[in-house]
Amino acid sequence: MTNKSEVETRSLMQRMEAVKQEITRHLEDGVIPFWLKGIDTEYGGYLTCFDENGVPTEDTDKYIVTQTRMIWGMSRFYREYPENKELLLAARQGVEFYIKHFWDTEYGGWFWKTNRKGELLDDGKVTYGQSFSIYALAEYTHATGDPIGQEYAEKTFDLMQKYCTDTVRGGYYENLERDWQVSSPGFHAGDRKSLDIHMHIMEAFTTLALVSKKEIHRRKLKESIEIILRYMVNAEIGCGLNQFDLDFKPIPAINIRRTWNAERETGEVIDEPMDTTSYGHNVELAWLLSYAGEVLNNKEEYLEITKKLVDHALRYGVDLEIGGVYRDGPHVGEPLVKDKEWWQNCESLVGFLNAFQQSGDEKYLNTFENLWDFCKENFINHEVGEWYQLLDKNGNILVSDLGNPWKAVYHTGRALLESKLRLERLVKSLI
Amino acid sequence: MTNKSEVETRSLMQRMEAVKQEITRHLEDGVIPFWLKGIDTEYGGYLTCFDENGVPTEDTDKYIVTQTRMIWGMSRFYREYPENKELLLAARQGVEFYIKHFWDTEYGGWFWKTNRKGELLDDGKVTYGQSFSIYALAEYTHATGDPIGQEYAEKTFDLMQKYCTDTVRGGYYENLERDWQVSSPGFHAGDRKSLDIHMHIMEAFTTLALVSKKEIHRRKLKESIEIILRYMVNAEIGCGLNQFDLDFKPIPAINIRRTWNAERETGEVIDEPMDTTSYGHNVELAWLLSYAGEVLNNKEEYLEITKKLVDHALRYGVDLEIGGVYRDGPHVGEPLVKDKEWWQNCESLVGFLNAFQQSGDEKYLNTFENLWDFCKENFINHEVGEWYQLLDKNGNILVSDLGNPWKAVYHTGRALLESKLRLERLVKSLI
Repeated sequence: MTNKSEVETRSLMQRMEAVKQEITRHLEDGVIPFWLKGIDTEYGGYLTCFDENGVPTEDTDKYIVTQTRMIWGMSRFYREYPENKELLLAARQGVEFYIKHFWDTEYGGWFWKTNRKGELLDDGKVTYGQSFSIYALAEYTHATGDPIGQEYAEKTFDLMQKYCTDTVRGGYYENLERDWQVSSPGFHAGDRKSLDIHMHIMEAFTTLALVSKKEIHRRKLKESIEIILRYMVNAEIGCGLNQFDLDFKPIPAINIRRTWNAERETGEVIDEPMDTTSYGHNVELAWLLSYAGEVLNNKEEYLEITKKLVDHALRYGVDLEIGGVYRDGPHVGEPLVKDKEWWQNCESLVGFLNAFQQSGDEKYLNTFENLWDFCKENFINHEVGEWYQLLDKNGNILVSDLGNPWKAVYHTGRALLESKLRLERLVKSLI
Repeated sequence: MTNKSEVETRSLMQRMEAVKQEITRHLEDGVIPFWLKGIDTEYGGYLTCFDENGVPTEDTDKYIVTQTRMIWGMSRFYREYPENKELLLAARQGVEFYIKHFWDTEYGGWFWKTNRKGELLDDGKVTYGQSFSIYALAEYTHATGDPIGQEYAEKTFDLMQKYCTDTVRGGYYENLERDWQVSSPGFHAGDRKSLDIHMHIMEAFTTLALVSKKEIHRRKLKESIEIILRYMVNAEIGCGLNQFDLDFKPIPAINIRRTWNAERETGEVIDEPMDTTSYGHNVELAWLLSYAGEVLNNKEEYLEITKKLVDHALRYGVDLEIGGVYRDGPHVGEPLVKDKEWWQNCESLVGFLNAFQQSGDEKYLNTFENLWDFCKENFINHEVGEWYQLLDKNGNILVSDLGNPWKAVYHTGRALLESKLRLERLVKSLI
């Protein structure tokens, strides 16, 4: 960006500053206040299911994924806005509820689901949930200084190393029972590995390594990256694969209890070719990987693959006409599912901005801006302050929930905060 | 053995009974009393270095390998001879010394070496030593009922899962520093894996699983077997390979600090072809694998490979003329090093007898008997009660130590006890 004219530079700064202000306003006046209302003042923890108007739905059960995503969000926002003590209280009471009701005092590790009061409904041990616990609890200590988060995060890490690692082939078992036995094959998926869950392991270990600074956390973070890059990504094409057998052989995706189209009660094969890939997931992987590299002080190492991942999404996954990012498609060629889902679009915001930061190539910034415009106009319920779940290609709402057992504040709040911080840094670098 | 005449059966019984009596006498009147004298009554633990006459040498340092091998032996013999309280006391004081001086209260895990008083000389964390700690301490609880052994064995297992597993490729890192960082490459061998150390992991997990009965110990035992059979054994030829890179690619053996020709201070390449194999190690692997299968209730699964390993040793490794088992040689063809070392011969006794138990084929029993005759005449210092370390092809003594930092009671005492028990079972089955 050095050989720009002063006029060009000023115009670039103004563009970024303008988006930053919109995003910051939506974060501070929309998303954060919306989710602060999710605190369950009666029983503790968070209520996370809301209809399109932000009215709580009948589903008051508490799920590991959304409880941890809320703890993560309240903590992360408190780190950004330390004057807002409401965030601190929101995080702290969430941690208290979570440890009291989700921690298995007999076998260790975190349960899958309780009812609103915290009474156990599903005692499964899913690596996905253990990872999000690490992510949330390490962030809680990072933000607040309260050591209990890191203490439980490290305990969870140790249990994962003991019970979830596959010491024959590498990688982690993903689906386990309460006593940490690996689940049966098929729908219970004890015989499968996935990019999704290994990416969230990497994400969790990044925050843990950042907070603990311990060599073992850094080492296992590095290894989690190597698992992904060795076995789970097509580096030539620049996209991720979905499901694998234990030997990392890519296999057709099936529905999986609890985590993958979990509402269906069978292991049926999904009607899509084996080689579909999720554009938004790939871009999420790209920026999470960049960030992991930053924490490990070897950011340069992943520049090539992260660029490949983002370029693939840019080539196939972005709707240049209407805006937004499609759900998924084949490794090469036209997208298969042109619906637009909130989380892929959130993650793509961060991913394209990250690509711009790394390369200075304005095509990524343009993509980011267009995407933000699409999100602003289609995804966000501005009156209430959160995003709808699913749109069709043209931006019409297909699923209007603002909150459900998987959503919470994680993708939206994180994307907004990441975008805000990155834009601030970019503008500063131009001054 | 069902279609034998009564006369043949009686003769077989008599042969086995006769050997059993010789072996039992040597165990009870030779090996056990010899090593009971190894107790360090002044400082605790064991003195393990003895010259050819059984006189203690100047080396009074205490090494993880021989301290644990002594704990294992005293415990295992006590389980066999519960009326002998001397064995119980010998084991107990060894455990006390070991926990007091070898356990790292800061980082966890076991140091490599202390002086006689227990003052630290080498703080390295070697997976080999951690495994022998598990083997010894689990056996101690098995034999005595004192829970402290299992408690530390399980702690060690947990630390190994946290710090030693390679979550990218499977298997275990073998050489680590005090704080559990993986050692540097080359002579410090942080970049290598070996059959030797993975076999002793399997051996340790077998006893731990037997004692704890915990699913996780059984699972990781199964996985340790799979690591060995997948990556470290040539199943077609029936022999093991030695050293590997982290990806399990076989590579030429080098000397390795602490564990492999450790007395040499460099990482020099040993002047032998990459594909040498140790006959005695292969036979040891065979019977340890059979036993692991017994503990896992899936003994049948390993019948084919264990037979291959034993047949390979029988074909190439046994000296049919003079007797005894050679040190090593190529995968196929004439042995390279025709010296005869105590431990390969000990392990071959058990291995050939195990093969006879599994198959009923008398060629294995004959080999066992001939081997025992060779050992009796050449290896054993009958006056003192232990075995010399190394003989040449013709049975002349090359290294006459009865005890050194690696030897102790483990190979000799275990081979004798295993042979005794197996012969008893065989004789009983013929009655």
